[in-house]
Amino acid sequence: MKIDLNYDMGESFGVYCNDSDRLALPYVSSINVACGFHASDPMNMRKTVKLAKEFGVCIGAHPSYPDLVGFGRRLLMASPEEITADIIYQTGALLAFTRSEGMKLNHIKCHGALYNEAARNPEVAKAVIEAVLLLDVNLILFCPDGSCMAEEARKTGIRYIEEIFADRAYMSDGKLVPRNVNGSVINSIEEVRKRVIKITRGEPILSIDGEAVTVKGSTICVHSDTPGSIEMLKAIHGALTSEGLEIKPPCFD
Amino acid sequence: MKIDLNYDMGESFGVYCNDSDRLALPYVSSINVACGFHASDPMNMRKTVKLAKEFGVCIGAHPSYPDLVGFGRRLLMASPEEITADIIYQTGALLAFTRSEGMKLNHIKCHGALYNEAARNPEVAKAVIEAVLLLDVNLILFCPDGSCMAEEARKTGIRYIEEIFADRAYMSDGKLVPRNVNGSVINSIEEVRKRVIKITRGEPILSIDGEAVTVKGSTICVHSDTPGSIEMLKAIHGALTSEGLEIKPPCFD
Amino acid sequence: MKIDLNYDMGESFGVYCNDSDRLALPYVSSINVACGFHASDPMNMRKTVKLAKEFGVCIGAHPSYPDLVGFGRRLLMASPEEITADIIYQTGALLAFTRSEGMKLNHIKCHGALYNEAARNPEVAKAVIEAVLLLDVNLILFCPDGSCMAEEARKTGIRYIEEIFADRAYMSDGKLVPRNVNGSVINSIEEVRKRVIKITRGEPILSIDGEAVTVKGSTICVHSDTPGSIEMLKAIHGALTSEGLEIKPPCFD
Amino acid sequence: MKIDLNYDMGESFGVYCNDSDRLALPYVSSINVACGFHASDPMNMRKTVKLAKEFGVCIGAHPSYPDLVGFGRRLLMASPEEITADIIYQTGALLAFTRSEGMKLNHIKCHGALYNEAARNPEVAKAVIEAVLLLDVNLILFCPDGSCMAEEARKTGIRYIEEIFADRAYMSDGKLVPRNVNGSVINSIEEVRKRVIKITRGEPILSIDGEAVTVKGSTICVHSDTPGSIEMLKAIHGALTSEGLEIKPPCFD
Repeated sequence: MKIDLNYDMGESFGVYCNDSDRLALPYVSSINVACGFHASDPMNMRKTVKLAKEFGVCIGAHPSYPDLVGFGRRLLMASPEEITADIIYQTGALLAFTRSEGMKLNHIKCHGALYNEAARNPEVAKAVIEAVLLLDVNLILFCPDGSCMAEEARKTGIRYIEEIFADRAYMSDGKLVPRNVNGSVINSIEEVRKRVIKITRGEPILSIDGEAVTVKGSTICVHSDTPGSIEMLKAIHGALTSEGLEIKPPCFD
Repeated sequence: MKIDLNYDMGESFGVYCNDSDRLALPYVSSINVACGFHASDPMNMRKTVKLAKEFGVCIGAHPSYPDLVGFGRRLLMASPEEITADIIYQTGALLAFTRSEGMKLNHIKCHGALYNEAARNPEVAKAVIEAVLLLDVNLILFCPDGSCMAEEARKTGIRYIEEIFADRAYMSDGKLVPRNVNGSVINSIEEVRKRVIKITRGEPILSIDGEAVTVKGSTICVHSDTPGSIEMLKAIHGALTSEGLEIKPPCFD
Repeated sequence: MKIDLNYDMGESFGVYCNDSDRLALPYVSSINVACGFHASDPMNMRKTVKLAKEFGVCIGAHPSYPDLVGFGRRLLMASPEEITADIIYQTGALLAFTRSEGMKLNHIKCHGALYNEAARNPEVAKAVIEAVLLLDVNLILFCPDGSCMAEEARKTGIRYIEEIFADRAYMSDGKLVPRNVNGSVINSIEEVRKRVIKITRGEPILSIDGEAVTVKGSTICVHSDTPGSIEMLKAIHGALTSEGLEIKPPCFD
Repeated sequence: MKIDLNYDMGESFGVYCNDSDRLALPYVSSINVACGFHASDPMNMRKTVKLAKEFGVCIGAHPSYPDLVGFGRRLLMASPEEITADIIYQTGALLAFTRSEGMKLNHIKCHGALYNEAARNPEVAKAVIEAVLLLDVNLILFCPDGSCMAEEARKTGIRYIEEIFADRAYMSDGKLVPRNVNGSVINSIEEVRKRVIKITRGEPILSIDGEAVTVKGSTICVHSDTPGSIEMLKAIHGALTSEGLEIKPPCFD
């Protein structure tokens, strides 16, 4: 049995340097690399790809709405055609860096507001999938469990996997509690560790309103900007290993 | 005997639309596609690649310093590492659009101030060539005749061709007269037509200070922002055809 | 009796030049000057302010969401605090240019998606008004007739005027027909001329669904990007003049 | 006797947060506030101005070439007209925030590559001074001692003061050793403390090549990005105080 552990990386910008990437790399199997629209720049993308190669982790693109100052966290009413083109542009830029290092691009995971919008809006989900089809039909799309993006990916027949958020509370319908709600982010490492074990065993966890909810997926996300994210990663890595799970990137071949 | 006729394209940005692309396409064999750093955006890049496919012209990347407001015409003291990364990023983005249309990327031609700086500064020329090597060793680099960029390309052994500027005056040493000098741009279509014929026959033309100068190259550039550029293109196309030259993109295979 | 005729101006960006400004200036009393977030740049702002001075028209700021590539036409879920700060930044930048020419800043009119959102969302309307209060309590805010922005402006007690859109269809509740609806933009100059006369006489016009609707306001907007906008301006100018109205900027002193 | 101690501030951008501002404020008399072209954004500018008000320090604008990704440290061959307009735009934006807090803008200090270029290139120096004249003739321009910018300011008759760099080595002609030269930045707090005392007493210091050089000025700059800059600030503050100097912002009234 195996599971993927994914992490957002390469989110430095110019002189603004996020130094935690090297600390996280030993514990993850996949990274989502910022492509210059919410964070990063060509120099940092090249550096991040080299780092991924050094640590042998799998690379995915992390495209975003064009919003550096808002870090891609603000919904932008872009048209489906604009979203498709923006994803192709960003992913193509990253692809050139992965190819130049002899690395492969394995997956796409939308960032921030674009991820959330593609999860709930079928038109946006279709625009994302259109980009995957135009880029490379073998790319794996990361989708929230039970989302409209997962549903559209299934209908289209592209490769996708569902994603579990280890440090986020769920509602009783299996959807994530929005970030602006109290209690949406779980900061207790012990609590996150317990949830991860339950989820990977297929056992229900408690939703934010106290009901049992079953969450499933084959990749676990830890947010790099959660305080203590490296400690969180280590704890989850330890829990998964002690459960006998192998931490490996997703693979459809 | 054949020669390439190249043209800058896809230089619209958002609502700012340059509508002359479709008019120029019947007369050119190669286009240089803006990649979002001096002009264009993902939607316009996709549209430009589709247009190139419709007209069957060869596509090249037209990377620039990051300077939308200055249209890439202002020298920026970027480091060689930054220049290499910026070119990989831009060209990779374009590559994703060409691949999605089943088209090939044939060449790279630096834009504006980056082109001029790579022509005269060996460190910048090497940074450009490093990008070509990392992207795809089969890409053809467009260089001014007798430039330091051509010299570095020759030494490195990458594919390159030299470029003739039909609508620009030359100095007696074979270099272009800088744009800020009076008489640097030739606006007379008849004059340009005559020069093109002389150059392609291997005959000398008159430099700006009245000396004979021999200019050579296997691609002719017409600037899309020269007033009357479409008429200029038609005249050059006619002159080349009547000289018995076939207008075809460069090919090393 | 007098009325204001306002027009969006200074919407060039870098080399992308909109040359119609000089043609429109003889017919308008107020201009809304782009401040670099949806269009324009420092050089163009300076030029636009000089042009306004030359023609003696009143200047207003035209702040936008930060979205150059989308021309500020896409809704961005910015927080009220971000919106307030963005408007202060843009208007302050313009103020420096007006002051340096000895001109006065008379009004603020939000651009595109920000205008529409402030018209319907009280939180955004309050954020806009907060910016006006922090900038200069004498600035006049342009609001759509019957909008939530006008309502909030009235409650706060700031100076505001209501705006009539000469070239847009209205719904029977007095709101504008959204741009993506067929028939939302009126291209017939004769039709626009007739509507303007009715509106300024206080007579009802026909809504898009054929009902009588009364529209009021003390400034008329003509969109600079409507095809034939200069002809439209001339026709409206002529109609207002023949109705005996004096075309003058709004004034509260 | 009094002297000014100035510090670069508000250099956060979006989520990229520089938290040292609050720590530095007790030790400085003037701050140079980033205006969005090399760092900062409207939200951060507003926050920085509020912080300056809280600590009672004097505010200056810190305009830059437009180069967020390069933090304004790369020379950009902008025209004098572009430089003047860029400075007016940035300073105007900051002015709106200072006015909204009832604060005054006291000085302008160019940032990074623009500061260096204005120090050595008379055309650029004149473009900077033109911006000061157009903005507010009472603004004080910070210039390096003996620079071409100081010379042009003196000839024009505007208010300016000369600046001492406490943590930078000087050449024997009194100019700063460029950053890319070994030994250009002085990291020893004790060494910096000693130099500051000598300089303020009017005694010569040792240039990088061992000659005596006299450096003068009425404001001392500490770079916020020098490692240990807060400790450096404290040491300089202590040295100046023990020398009997009062640390106060520059004032011409």
